Amino acid sequence: MTDYPELMTRDLAAGLRLVDGGVTAARGFRAGNTACGIKSDAGLPDLALLVADEQCAAAGTFTTSKTASHTVLLDREKLASTGGHAQAVVVNSGNANCSNGEQGMLDARRMADVTAQKLGIDPSLVLVSSTGIIGRRLPIDKVEKGVAQIEVHPDGGPDFAQGIITTDTRTKTIAVEFTVEGKTVRLGGSTKGAGMIYPNMATMLCYLTTDAAAEPAFLQQLLSAAVDDSFNMVCVDGDMSTNDTVLLFASGVAGNTPLNASSPDAALFEAALRHVTRYLAREIPRDGEGASRFQTVTVRNAPTRADARKAARAITNSPIWQCAIAGSDPNWGRVIAALGKSGADLDHNKLDISLGGVLVVHNGVATDYDQAAAKQVMGQPEVAVDVDLHLGDVSAMAWGCDLTHGYIEENAEYTR
Amino acid sequence: MTDYPELMTRDLAAGLRLVDGGVTAARGFRAGNTACGIKSDAGLPDLALLVADEQCAAAGTFTTSKTASHTVLLDREKLASTGGHAQAVVVNSGNANCSNGEQGMLDARRMADVTAQKLGIDPSLVLVSSTGIIGRRLPIDKVEKGVAQIEVHPDGGPDFAQGIITTDTRTKTIAVEFTVEGKTVRLGGSTKGAGMIYPNMATMLCYLTTDAAAEPAFLQQLLSAAVDDSFNMVCVDGDMSTNDTVLLFASGVAGNTPLNASSPDAALFEAALRHVTRYLAREIPRDGEGASRFQTVTVRNAPTRADARKAARAITNSPIWQCAIAGSDPNWGRVIAALGKSGADLDHNKLDISLGGVLVVHNGVATDYDQAAAKQVMGQPEVAVDVDLHLGDVSAMAWGCDLTHGYIEENAEYTR
Repeated sequence: MTDYPELMTRDLAAGLRLVDGGVTAARGFRAGNTACGIKSDAGLPDLALLVADEQCAAAGTFTTSKTASHTVLLDREKLASTGGHAQAVVVNSGNANCSNGEQGMLDARRMADVTAQKLGIDPSLVLVSSTGIIGRRLPIDKVEKGVAQIEVHPDGGPDFAQGIITTDTRTKTIAVEFTVEGKTVRLGGSTKGAGMIYPNMATMLCYLTTDAAAEPAFLQQLLSAAVDDSFNMVCVDGDMSTNDTVLLFASGVAGNTPLNASSPDAALFEAALRHVTRYLAREIPRDGEGASRFQTVTVRNAPTRADARKAARAITNSPIWQCAIAGSDPNWGRVIAALGKSGADLDHNKLDISLGGVLVVHNGVATDYDQAAAKQVMGQPEVAVDVDLHLGDVSAMAWGCDLTHGYIEENAEYTR
Repeated sequence: MTDYPELMTRDLAAGLRLVDGGVTAARGFRAGNTACGIKSDAGLPDLALLVADEQCAAAGTFTTSKTASHTVLLDREKLASTGGHAQAVVVNSGNANCSNGEQGMLDARRMADVTAQKLGIDPSLVLVSSTGIIGRRLPIDKVEKGVAQIEVHPDGGPDFAQGIITTDTRTKTIAVEFTVEGKTVRLGGSTKGAGMIYPNMATMLCYLTTDAAAEPAFLQQLLSAAVDDSFNMVCVDGDMSTNDTVLLFASGVAGNTPLNASSPDAALFEAALRHVTRYLAREIPRDGEGASRFQTVTVRNAPTRADARKAARAITNSPIWQCAIAGSDPNWGRVIAALGKSGADLDHNKLDISLGGVLVVHNGVATDYDQAAAKQVMGQPEVAVDVDLHLGDVSAMAWGCDLTHGYIEENAEYTR
């Protein structure tokens, strides 16, 4: 079912094995979805619930938007108050619960409270997420009805993945298995994306679970770093959202000693987390609104990490270059322009640029490249843009998509 | 001929009168164009020349891109070496002369030198501009042929305007007349825009002339300030170009005492310059690639000028909001999201937003606004987005357009 790219399979770190199940691949979790009428298309799943059998160590990263949604504000508050613990998250799609004032915060709390009541757990352990249209009051009566009727199962991962998507054309899920202290551990997750995608510090909606035991502070540190190199490096349209959220729950069912920075298997756990977040992040522009082609941008030999990241992100966030990709046009001058505007430290006369392995620019000037070959690589479903700044030794990767008529069709009529 | 909007006519500062003629409205200038085969569509004008009868005081602002074109690098060098003097500018369209290495700089110099030779003036007084595809060598033989055949006339302003455009659907020109020391003075100009438009510190191509006498340092100071509030506040697609250039020539034919900051008429001259640059800047997104609707964004009561500008520009540079405008959709949640990502200091709970005069958000929450009225104002050719931050007393305006299928059509196949 999952569109698991060849590249990522090859990339699987030593000691990791792919498994099915998404957010319920790890032991100790149940999940499900229901349709309660929040989305205008009746019958589409629009409420999803993920619940652990026991309280979990938990970590989260959230949008840096100054108009963050009420759900984001509430989750930040809860994770701080519990010192990094949670047991459930309830997610609605179709309404962002953003820009609804005090009522929005009351509705977010109510959504958590009715879920806590159903599950018989403390409300401080229930997180909430919303995605959809901004500025309309959350239909809390429908949410309450949905919470009452939703059923969760130990194999409910795929249902959960279905319940959180909006304009996504497919679900986005992965899970891996590995060994910690001789015990089998799993880590998996699901994400949603599609539009308003240019995260900064956190992103979109993504839910991760593991049955490893881990200390909350360690979890948070690993999650923030992994998100920075995955979700924070994708772009569909340059629009950071008000609701971006990544949550990680660790149930501890595997029975290992809680992981921390000095655990012998800390590095393997981090590799698993980075693999899962990177896979899910890449899935977002791969299924960006209207996207027909995917681009992987690698910037090498930058003087600093910030320069490498700025340069890579500027290329994924250039509408005019995204249009060139849509048209299979190796118009690399637009990559030059994107680099120029990026704010990254660079020397125009040292730039090398390859498109799909074809070196089109050397020392800032066009090479005598084969036009047909360049056109051919630009016509592939995946385009690799490789930039060498020759100014240092730091690299960064970013992922994006093209800009097509489909994006405009989806976004000119969204609130109807 | 000129599409001079009602709004701007009403806005004409006291003491200014509209006149025809563009860059040749001011006395002491001649201009013209020719077709020399740089553009692939044979017969389209692609070389333009503006020349003053005598050496002028001159000022310029240029792209801050780190991959600036060879013409931009050369003009910066020349204006510095002459201490703010110039007599001519030769402009080609169809080729950006950017990313061509040492050859690009040689070609830019050659373009200036052959023009200086034809005009019998010192090469240091001839500026050059290029616009078009990045990364292809400038066909210098065609440029030389064009320079040899081009004719300039005292009424050649409209021809010049035609010679500098690329994907623009029309020329963009204005001129005003006013009085300095009892002497009639004119100030006018032409610009080109259309795509790769999100200037920072300078912008696109724009040429301004006046027959007022003025001190170069004073001209430069006024031009930089006027550009900052005009061209630096427009957006078509968020892509800053490698070739952005604004030049101002003052011939002094009017015979006034050279203007400086303490001249009695300095304020009127500045008002004229601000009017002309703002008119021309607004013309760019009005004719943005594929644009069907124009937006004027006003951000009021920001704590600082930087906050006001960031907030206003973030709205014009939100593809997802630009799509809402294309679809006549009053989906103001996307304005909220753009404000949130802008980096401007704001309080979500104090935001007021009006669309075309309809107050849709008060204190960060939807008002009980008339949906039909909101939809109706979003269907107009011009949409006014008014944001009140209620945090200070500084305002800024920015101008942009919608995002349509036309933009993608133009940019998916540009280099063919």
